[in-house]
Amino acid sequence: MDPRIEDHAELLVDHCTDVQRGDMVAVMAPPAAADLEVAIYEALGERGAMPIGLSLPRRAMRAYAAAIDADDVQMMDHALAFVEETDVMIGIRGAANVSEMNGLDPEEMQAFAKVQKPIQDAQMQCRWVGTQFPAPGNAQKAEMNTDDYRDFVWNAVNKDWDEQREFQAQMVEILDDAEEVRIVSGEETDLTMSVAGNPTKNDDAEHNLPGGEVFTAPVPDSVEGTVCFDKPVMGMGREIRNASLEFEGGEVVHHDAEQNADVLAGIVGTDEGAKRLGELGIGMNRDIDRFTYNMLFDEKMGDTVHLAIGRAYAETVGEGNEQNESAVHKDMIVDMSEDSFIEVDGEVVQRDGTFVFEDGFEG
Amino acid sequence: MDPRIEDHAELLVDHCTDVQRGDMVAVMAPPAAADLEVAIYEALGERGAMPIGLSLPRRAMRAYAAAIDADDVQMMDHALAFVEETDVMIGIRGAANVSEMNGLDPEEMQAFAKVQKPIQDAQMQCRWVGTQFPAPGNAQKAEMNTDDYRDFVWNAVNKDWDEQREFQAQMVEILDDAEEVRIVSGEETDLTMSVAGNPTKNDDAEHNLPGGEVFTAPVPDSVEGTVCFDKPVMGMGREIRNASLEFEGGEVVHHDAEQNADVLAGIVGTDEGAKRLGELGIGMNRDIDRFTYNMLFDEKMGDTVHLAIGRAYAETVGEGNEQNESAVHKDMIVDMSEDSFIEVDGEVVQRDGTFVFEDGFEG
Repeated sequence: MDPRIEDHAELLVDHCTDVQRGDMVAVMAPPAAADLEVAIYEALGERGAMPIGLSLPRRAMRAYAAAIDADDVQMMDHALAFVEETDVMIGIRGAANVSEMNGLDPEEMQAFAKVQKPIQDAQMQCRWVGTQFPAPGNAQKAEMNTDDYRDFVWNAVNKDWDEQREFQAQMVEILDDAEEVRIVSGEETDLTMSVAGNPTKNDDAEHNLPGGEVFTAPVPDSVEGTVCFDKPVMGMGREIRNASLEFEGGEVVHHDAEQNADVLAGIVGTDEGAKRLGELGIGMNRDIDRFTYNMLFDEKMGDTVHLAIGRAYAETVGEGNEQNESAVHKDMIVDMSEDSFIEVDGEVVQRDGTFVFEDGFEG
Repeated sequence: MDPRIEDHAELLVDHCTDVQRGDMVAVMAPPAAADLEVAIYEALGERGAMPIGLSLPRRAMRAYAAAIDADDVQMMDHALAFVEETDVMIGIRGAANVSEMNGLDPEEMQAFAKVQKPIQDAQMQCRWVGTQFPAPGNAQKAEMNTDDYRDFVWNAVNKDWDEQREFQAQMVEILDDAEEVRIVSGEETDLTMSVAGNPTKNDDAEHNLPGGEVFTAPVPDSVEGTVCFDKPVMGMGREIRNASLEFEGGEVVHHDAEQNADVLAGIVGTDEGAKRLGELGIGMNRDIDRFTYNMLFDEKMGDTVHLAIGRAYAETVGEGNEQNESAVHKDMIVDMSEDSFIEVDGEVVQRDGTFVFEDGFEG
């Protein structure tokens, strides 16, 4: 086996989820990720944990979703009972075909996700991590050959996360005491929001492997202005291009996209919380050096900012502040590499992708 | 899609498990059975049921089992909670490599199964069915090309089960009122057992697809004599050849095999119930016309008898009779096609594979 797969597995069960003897573990691995699945199970065996998989096969789920009447969708009691008894959840992505969910009605998919929200909530009570196996479908989406894509993924994944945490801590320090953040990029994006009282988290690959961002939650009602997400967003297996949102009093008052605007509309329309922001994230993983049409990687790039509409993570919401609730959490990216800056309480802390604490910063 | 796959899926969700709107369904499908999995999910969607998969990937499970310390094995609480909330379980076999579990210590595997017995018990409370997808590994095991093997599987599976039930009812009638059954084959097999008071079930593909047997439970303490299973038995991915068992007072007092005797010993040694018989079955599916080294099919052949050591099915145990309990249920086959007969209360009811109610029977 490629030793990088074994390193990947060790990071997942030790660094990310701190698996202990007796832990009930759920491993969600698609067939394309079988090698990593084997390495994880072996590592779990060595640690005396008890693994089994929960499987949502995408090709089958698509056929199912196309066949079921929306009124028949119910809470999956068996899946919920499973997650409630689970200590650790390890989710692996890896596709033979990243377009496998295409052809579905976005609104119906959102309705399905909404009904299953208690399962998501239960998962948040576990120690959980999501990661990527470099499968051919993902390589194709990234427009890379499979071997180069493997190098890309494992360079981003198998790194010194203690060192990375220290690098990121510099930005956490800036944001933690901040009141107002302003994101400006080109002509289309000028957005302000309050993050007052909300803690900023240092993503050293606890829930995402690779990690490599710092993130907090905007105060829901404080968001004002417009934002254009110039990097494509995948939704329901479809590519939303140049999505734009306009906020007033924290709420989306206008949304549009150059391509698949209906998919975006479906996401925004899921519930009340899907009309408001749940996350502000700043990418800081310099080993991710290109866009690969994969949010898990793209949002960690050093010269990007991402915003998520929908659910806010509890740990990013300060005492007394409102936590945005929603069945969705959809990340979308703004490219900050050119003609862009981040301002915190009136001071520029990143310009054209370079942070104030990095060489080459021009304030 | 091959229309035989759609027929197969319809039988599983209607005939076998009578899926209704709102049912919580578990579909266990290996990657090699993806086409059938898709057809099942589509059929479940049309019926308004809620499916998800539980996954025990064999390659990963082998690596896990080799790595874990036997003392660390615990009950899988999350899997149990899942099964307890499940109405319908559909298990599909289909292997890229039927030898994927080879190399494991049979005793450790039995110990693992023993700890997980409550999950098996919970499954028995569901409407459940096990079936086979004609995957390349299974075709190879059967020494057939994949296309011929597909024909074989779907001929045995996609049939008129009402007609089959009527054919089998003739044998049920004979066994239902029987006291003593004697199985004789060649020099090596001469076994008697009481089935008094135990109902005989007509397997018209409720729990197995294909079905095609009638079966009951021997009274545990009544089994006397010797039996040689001249058809190979797969145990822990290994082939047990010419397994033989000697019974006294219902208990195995001697066991041996020409090949992989240690695997047999591991099974028999699982627990007290694994030393006693839990099932007597008589194969009656005439569409299964060859051995394929696959118990799901082999045990249904018209000129075979099979016996299982271990757990007896509750529905085959009459009121006041003892139900054999065990963590295992291991079927083993006696070829009855030559030099063989089945005697019920002193009367021959099958000779050399031909039943008393079939043309060509010689009493």
